[in-house]
Amino acid sequence: MKIEKIDHIGIAVKKIEDAFKFYSENFNLKISEPIEVLSQKVRVAFIEIGGVKLELIEPLGGDSPVAKFIKKKGEGLHHICFQVDDIEDALKKLKENEVRLVDQVPRVGATGKRIAFLHPESAFGVLIELKEK
Amino acid sequence: MKIEKIDHIGIAVKKIEDAFKFYSENFNLKISEPIEVLSQKVRVAFIEIGGVKLELIEPLGGDSPVAKFIKKKGEGLHHICFQVDDIEDALKKLKENEVRLVDQVPRVGATGKRIAFLHPESAFGVLIELKEK
Repeated sequence: MKIEKIDHIGIAVKKIEDAFKFYSENFNLKISEPIEVLSQKVRVAFIEIGGVKLELIEPLGGDSPVAKFIKKKGEGLHHICFQVDDIEDALKKLKENEVRLVDQVPRVGATGKRIAFLHPESAFGVLIELKEK
Repeated sequence: MKIEKIDHIGIAVKKIEDAFKFYSENFNLKISEPIEVLSQKVRVAFIEIGGVKLELIEPLGGDSPVAKFIKKKGEGLHHICFQVDDIEDALKKLKENEVRLVDQVPRVGATGKRIAFLHPESAFGVLIELKEK
């Protein structure tokens, strides 16, 4: 399995527009149109910096997993996403290595690509997302 | 001020070698030789992925700020570092915008470049490092 690049870094925020003001006013960065991902109960938007994106993630409703994250840990860094060439192959190898997975099989992510999350317990506290190219 | 790229993502770990095994065994990634940064009471090593680095940060001693972070929040994502072309200019603009800074003036970081940290309170929970090119 080959990791080709860091696709994005996920940041949990209470409100995309409020958090984006910080990136806009201080660093002149631009943001994509927010998308609602109802299956995950979030709204997301991307800030691109030199080919890698920051994903601002806003919870939709109090029972959203991201709402729970913010309640427990506060706003801030949430996950990191690696781009892989073959996600089936990646998950197979991770299972062989007894890495704990959140998603046993790939699902379709916010941008239409196949993704899967690993459990932070197996990755020294980091929530890792894999995204197929 | 222009942010040119994401330089690295800092990850707090108890022991670099233990955490790196995860990245090595599952993703075939390589790591740099660890460096001790005594002024920050840490040991750091870098894993490069497509031009962006993961910085594994291990505390040296229980009174290291990173030891305190791990005690409070556990191992995991710690900070994100943006590369800027002119750090003096960046800090000047941030001060004008009343952004709370950890470092009022640049200091020399682990890799010999000038860096400064912003306070997460001003950045919606994200600890941001700026690093001069």
